[in-house]
Amino acid sequence: MQWSEEDGKVEWEQFFPFISVLKKEEREQLAIHAKRARFQKNENLHGADGECTGLILIEQGIVRVYMMSEEGKEITLYRLYPGDICLLSASCVLESITFDVFVDAQTDCQVCIVPAGFVASLSKQHLEVENYLLKTATERFSDVMWAMQQILFLRFDQRLAIFLMDEAAQRATDTLYMTQEEIARSIGSAREVVSRMLKFFASEGLVRILRGGVEILDKARLRKLTQSA
Amino acid sequence: MQWSEEDGKVEWEQFFPFISVLKKEEREQLAIHAKRARFQKNENLHGADGECTGLILIEQGIVRVYMMSEEGKEITLYRLYPGDICLLSASCVLESITFDVFVDAQTDCQVCIVPAGFVASLSKQHLEVENYLLKTATERFSDVMWAMQQILFLRFDQRLAIFLMDEAAQRATDTLYMTQEEIARSIGSAREVVSRMLKFFASEGLVRILRGGVEILDKARLRKLTQSA
Repeated sequence: MQWSEEDGKVEWEQFFPFISVLKKEEREQLAIHAKRARFQKNENLHGADGECTGLILIEQGIVRVYMMSEEGKEITLYRLYPGDICLLSASCVLESITFDVFVDAQTDCQVCIVPAGFVASLSKQHLEVENYLLKTATERFSDVMWAMQQILFLRFDQRLAIFLMDEAAQRATDTLYMTQEEIARSIGSAREVVSRMLKFFASEGLVRILRGGVEILDKARLRKLTQSA
Repeated sequence: MQWSEEDGKVEWEQFFPFISVLKKEEREQLAIHAKRARFQKNENLHGADGECTGLILIEQGIVRVYMMSEEGKEITLYRLYPGDICLLSASCVLESITFDVFVDAQTDCQVCIVPAGFVASLSKQHLEVENYLLKTATERFSDVMWAMQQILFLRFDQRLAIFLMDEAAQRATDTLYMTQEEIARSIGSAREVVSRMLKFFASEGLVRILRGGVEILDKARLRKLTQSA
């Protein structure tokens, strides 16, 4: 990790929709407490040392949030992208969160870290801030439930991969002009589920998401996915 | 299910710490909209019909919250006891929750159901109400993370030992009248796997298998198993 003193304003409005309820002094304090940092691919951002890091605002790159067993087995819960905030790295701020997770840089990242203590004081002062933190936690809850479903039941990745390969073969093209809604209907799923899995495929470099379509980038790996048990 | 017109005031303060922020009319409306109901053991309270049931306040009995695969495999996420509110049965009220769960009566239950539409209107009027719902959701997130850890990481002998000890402690008895099917459902496993492990436990003198139940014989060694890394 490298603290970065570079200029360039943090886009607070993008990360904190509650920003307008903060007093002028609080906004100034926020700018003082928040520190920008860079992490290299695979570096650990949170969780290795048991500290309550604080809110991590993702400005550039992708981070991966996962849990780890005592034997070191990892389960990826979700990924965060530019514009997202990582809340579970500030879990000590919310009493209702009683677990901890690990956060690693999946790519080189630029982030802005707002220390947990300062977040806690804002959250105590403003119901809107606590509300926003809880809402973010609840969105992550949805992500985790989705991951859990994937892990435990669905093998939805396999179903979607089979569908894409079949369609590409039938149409003799790697670029499928179908909306996510149409794909969902075709495989008996929901648009949201298809959308999430396509984003995951895209993050893995298997496909590219187009306006009104999907382009297959890595046939070999997609085919491998259709064959996994 | 049976709607119950019996008297007896609902203990609103117990379930809704925000009750004092509601206006007099809102409290009156709450009393009108809320309906008391009874469910028998194993009856489905929510999830089977795809409806957004509403908040379920548990007055008596235990409910079990679980997810189900397309093939009908169940994974228990957590249980709720008297004084708890079931929020995920009103998930349509919170935009940030994009999944649904099933809720069954684990024992005979008396509950009070507050319809989703009315909860949504309260939540829109009062930040405190939305805040409370989100806080409850976040607590359930913690429960689910714990369940996930149990399911994904722990060794199965350990999982089964923990389950038996927990149940025995909760029920204050060493004889658990639960079928192997019920045990399997509770810990997210298959009946065959539970059956095999119970037979192994019995051969080691840890438990005795009864008709429709299990008796714990050697608490000390079973406890030791729960602590093994």
